[in-house]
Amino acid sequence: MHTIGVLTSGGDAPGMNAAIRAVVRTGAYHGIRVMGIKRGYNGLINGDMDDMDARSVSETLQKGGTILQTARCLEFKEEAGVRKGVEIAKVFGLDGLIVIGGDGSFRGALDLCRAGLPTVAVPGTIDNDIGCSEYTIGYDTCLNTVQDAVDKLRDTSTSHERCSVIEVMGRGAGYIALNAGIACGAEVVLVPEIPYDFDEDVLRPILEGKARGKKHSIIIVAEGVGVSVIEMAKEIQEKTGIEARATILGHVQRGGSPSVRDRVIASEMGSKAVELLMEGKSNRIVCMQNSKVVDVDIEEGLQMKKKLSEDIMKLAKKLSV
Amino acid sequence: MHTIGVLTSGGDAPGMNAAIRAVVRTGAYHGIRVMGIKRGYNGLINGDMDDMDARSVSETLQKGGTILQTARCLEFKEEAGVRKGVEIAKVFGLDGLIVIGGDGSFRGALDLCRAGLPTVAVPGTIDNDIGCSEYTIGYDTCLNTVQDAVDKLRDTSTSHERCSVIEVMGRGAGYIALNAGIACGAEVVLVPEIPYDFDEDVLRPILEGKARGKKHSIIIVAEGVGVSVIEMAKEIQEKTGIEARATILGHVQRGGSPSVRDRVIASEMGSKAVELLMEGKSNRIVCMQNSKVVDVDIEEGLQMKKKLSEDIMKLAKKLSV
Amino acid sequence: MHTIGVLTSGGDAPGMNAAIRAVVRTGAYHGIRVMGIKRGYNGLINGDMDDMDARSVSETLQKGGTILQTARCLEFKEEAGVRKGVEIAKVFGLDGLIVIGGDGSFRGALDLCRAGLPTVAVPGTIDNDIGCSEYTIGYDTCLNTVQDAVDKLRDTSTSHERCSVIEVMGRGAGYIALNAGIACGAEVVLVPEIPYDFDEDVLRPILEGKARGKKHSIIIVAEGVGVSVIEMAKEIQEKTGIEARATILGHVQRGGSPSVRDRVIASEMGSKAVELLMEGKSNRIVCMQNSKVVDVDIEEGLQMKKKLSEDIMKLAKKLSV
Amino acid sequence: MHTIGVLTSGGDAPGMNAAIRAVVRTGAYHGIRVMGIKRGYNGLINGDMDDMDARSVSETLQKGGTILQTARCLEFKEEAGVRKGVEIAKVFGLDGLIVIGGDGSFRGALDLCRAGLPTVAVPGTIDNDIGCSEYTIGYDTCLNTVQDAVDKLRDTSTSHERCSVIEVMGRGAGYIALNAGIACGAEVVLVPEIPYDFDEDVLRPILEGKARGKKHSIIIVAEGVGVSVIEMAKEIQEKTGIEARATILGHVQRGGSPSVRDRVIASEMGSKAVELLMEGKSNRIVCMQNSKVVDVDIEEGLQMKKKLSEDIMKLAKKLSV
Repeated sequence: MHTIGVLTSGGDAPGMNAAIRAVVRTGAYHGIRVMGIKRGYNGLINGDMDDMDARSVSETLQKGGTILQTARCLEFKEEAGVRKGVEIAKVFGLDGLIVIGGDGSFRGALDLCRAGLPTVAVPGTIDNDIGCSEYTIGYDTCLNTVQDAVDKLRDTSTSHERCSVIEVMGRGAGYIALNAGIACGAEVVLVPEIPYDFDEDVLRPILEGKARGKKHSIIIVAEGVGVSVIEMAKEIQEKTGIEARATILGHVQRGGSPSVRDRVIASEMGSKAVELLMEGKSNRIVCMQNSKVVDVDIEEGLQMKKKLSEDIMKLAKKLSV
Repeated sequence: MHTIGVLTSGGDAPGMNAAIRAVVRTGAYHGIRVMGIKRGYNGLINGDMDDMDARSVSETLQKGGTILQTARCLEFKEEAGVRKGVEIAKVFGLDGLIVIGGDGSFRGALDLCRAGLPTVAVPGTIDNDIGCSEYTIGYDTCLNTVQDAVDKLRDTSTSHERCSVIEVMGRGAGYIALNAGIACGAEVVLVPEIPYDFDEDVLRPILEGKARGKKHSIIIVAEGVGVSVIEMAKEIQEKTGIEARATILGHVQRGGSPSVRDRVIASEMGSKAVELLMEGKSNRIVCMQNSKVVDVDIEEGLQMKKKLSEDIMKLAKKLSV
Repeated sequence: MHTIGVLTSGGDAPGMNAAIRAVVRTGAYHGIRVMGIKRGYNGLINGDMDDMDARSVSETLQKGGTILQTARCLEFKEEAGVRKGVEIAKVFGLDGLIVIGGDGSFRGALDLCRAGLPTVAVPGTIDNDIGCSEYTIGYDTCLNTVQDAVDKLRDTSTSHERCSVIEVMGRGAGYIALNAGIACGAEVVLVPEIPYDFDEDVLRPILEGKARGKKHSIIIVAEGVGVSVIEMAKEIQEKTGIEARATILGHVQRGGSPSVRDRVIASEMGSKAVELLMEGKSNRIVCMQNSKVVDVDIEEGLQMKKKLSEDIMKLAKKLSV
Repeated sequence: MHTIGVLTSGGDAPGMNAAIRAVVRTGAYHGIRVMGIKRGYNGLINGDMDDMDARSVSETLQKGGTILQTARCLEFKEEAGVRKGVEIAKVFGLDGLIVIGGDGSFRGALDLCRAGLPTVAVPGTIDNDIGCSEYTIGYDTCLNTVQDAVDKLRDTSTSHERCSVIEVMGRGAGYIALNAGIACGAEVVLVPEIPYDFDEDVLRPILEGKARGKKHSIIIVAEGVGVSVIEMAKEIQEKTGIEARATILGHVQRGGSPSVRDRVIASEMGSKAVELLMEGKSNRIVCMQNSKVVDVDIEEGLQMKKKLSEDIMKLAKKLSV
């Protein structure tokens, strides 16, 4: 293992730079050459990559986004694209590759392994929706961004005795919504994993909360639920007479200087990925299980499922009395 | 002047609590009884008010929103409502009233003065759109909230080489958009005060920026411009081929712990309002002129206009090269 | 189980209010009466306690510190004090008690159990130094406060090409120092668990970093190491010629609105504590193991040890190349 | 005016990068070549400078510190040093120079003007202690950093019913202490401009506050007062029996991403400095008067004094009842 490449793929997430830095510096520490590949798999296919040394990643720990940039790559979804990637890797002398991204990116990593390029994947996505890992890089920062926004919305909701309906990210998963809901004391949390009844699960808690003396209510809706928070706010206002306002938090949730947790876990995971390649391993996902950084086979990892905790869903309800 | 009332009216703004605290404590310092009136003019009309002492406002300086709450009051727009307010004030022994709010609230204050209740107004609105005052309480916190959000959006815009189109608040005025635009290095700032040409003022700077090596562009649009940022993002993407994403920052802009500037100026203004009443003055707006806290006649104040600085608009353009 | 008491003891930590809220609301949900006891064990001995209902803990999730306050209680270290506590508990009808604090507080909880008052303990301390729990309430917020401060110090260190020597909290443990060190890219981390050689472990990395082109260096020292960072900064400056500045972060590390992680885990732990009492359990510490909230016997828990990870210490070194 | 240089000198301050960016981009906009000079006057004397174009200052608006770095320069305090600076400026073809810093740096700028190099100065210091300017770059960010820290200290002070004694920066001036004191609701503010009596001005308000039901007290001491907050905390504890803790905020006050106000005013000032040089003006300080950005003669500016407002000192007292 003389030379390895590193790329970020899929949606960006805070902490990706900490992972890149860990790859580059762990490489430097062990005398391995590291090349930074630009714009995800596009940079691999097009040979858009540069040498990185320990100084290339100075002052990046605290930066949001990804210094290697990221993009979708349709060409890479075809077999020909993957073969081209492996060839270009040979041209640049890459003996291994580290891919930081979500499950879509992991499938690309699996294809590269099968086509002969040793590859290790690192989970980087704010959505925390990787089945084999308790944690994904960016999730904690995203949650704190959401909390900060909801705390602000509560100020104004309380002042006006309004109901705030807030759409948060998470793709098909409800982790962001549920944990932000508990952290912010939401009256209602809607997630894609659990069906809901509008009257029973939305209107009733709002009206009961008001009856119990609450000055405002906070409704957090995961984007994966697939409803319009604007429409929902209107319906709440019509049916309860309580003023309701919708907010779609949007892409702010992807940005920001990473939290300690994201920086530390990203550092551990990036470093682990280099060491796996050095040990001759390939086709692995670095992941967190039982709060430890371990690794699993990519194919197996992609088939693992994790479930939103029902206990935590119940907790959210209990605590909103 | 034995007893005064204080209320917050219109949209809430960070720093209103600092102003309320300053009213209550300046009152306490001078031996004046202060009553806190709930939900704006509604509380006046309905006699919904309570005694406040120095301890009632402990731990409120750092809180967003308004502890007195706020609401619209249609009844108060009628002469009968104003007369009722003056009568209730008499019942509760109020010798004077302090109203913290925007220009709509000031008109109510003027009506009360004319109907015989000595009233002083304090500018509290994030929009900074009060003609007679360089500054309104909440404006600085709002700007910093917007900056924080745009800094986060830039992380992800840069990573994906996208264009971010962001709607910010400000009602009919462009102060928030313009100053956030300079602070965040926006490529384009659109404000209601200045007409724009889409090709010349939006598309061209984006394309020129890209040609000059910019990895992303930030377009800030004041809500008062009246366009849909969602539509604008689509049009930018179609016409430039650059991926564009829209974000409506929404009500988060109203919340948050107030900045130093908002807490200090709110403290000065709230205290000044009490002292004006003590000096037997009425029908005054406390305001900032030449960076000093002074006061003007409400009627005159309501007719003053201030203009968005053209120099600052030009500066925004120069600095986005 | 009709009535339970809750108190916070020892040093305050962000998230204690989330735990109190979870106790109160889980109690309310199950129809159990909850009394809030003031100033730790003092309030128990002196009968300084009040009923709390679901509304008593409104708007507390986001507040730092502890609304029940906390204090040392020398009297409680004597057997007579503990007996008095149990008697007062009887007088107020407490069937059980929840104690939120560090290991000193846990010993008090154990004494109460032995004297006949069913008690459950919840780990609340920024230091993360509870042997039986991977996590203690307040730790994550503290780490992010430290990170924020060190990120600021780096700005000025880099501008002046200085060395920053920073003392952080942690009592006898190095968790805060080590994790903040990785998160902030510290060149040197000194912890009480691992002896160090000043020339080899402090001076050498600073000089090597400079030789490799680093513009500044960050030295993080856990308070448990027991050296003066002021003296250390002087010595570094004398021996390397590089300007060095010391900062003692101090009590700011205890404050601040809790992070998502602290709010969520505190909510889980507080709720779990109530449910343990409801199940007739006593003498338990609620703790986190393998990233799950579980419980252990207090006596056993107090004897468990956890070790600072040597892998993470090595990682800190690798990543500072 | 074909080529101008820009340097930062003295202590660093948040917003200096916004000023540098404004100089570079205003230069680029008008077709003027800009050279960035490293480490203050040292870089001028040693010819340590580089061309900067519009892209050199990308992504710098949000960064604390100064990308040009800063340092003391003893050599420049001698006439020979100044002459050398003027000669090197000629060698590099500099037709003018912009100096961003405090009053020490302004004296250097005056010397350069007298020795024949057209120079304009911009006030950059967190201390706000420039007589001719209502505002200095970095002051607002510093105040908000102090406020954030004191808000955190209040959490723990209140929980433990302690007194917090906090030393803040400001060199010989009390602006930071006074304004942070009002913003944070300090019980006592000590500034170098106003003598104080320990019993009357420190002990008495603490004891009176306690008698009025306050759970904590905050004492803010400007570094210019010249007392040890550690000693003062001890004395307070001994004489009142109230636990007291000292905190020296230190260099964190210099760092952090600049606030909107710092970014906007720094942008205005940096741009104005270039335009003054373009108009053939020299020997000017760009400054803020009556909330407008104007310019004054350096020599005259250095002689102007500004006074800490006594009204604001009184206000701090009134509001701490």
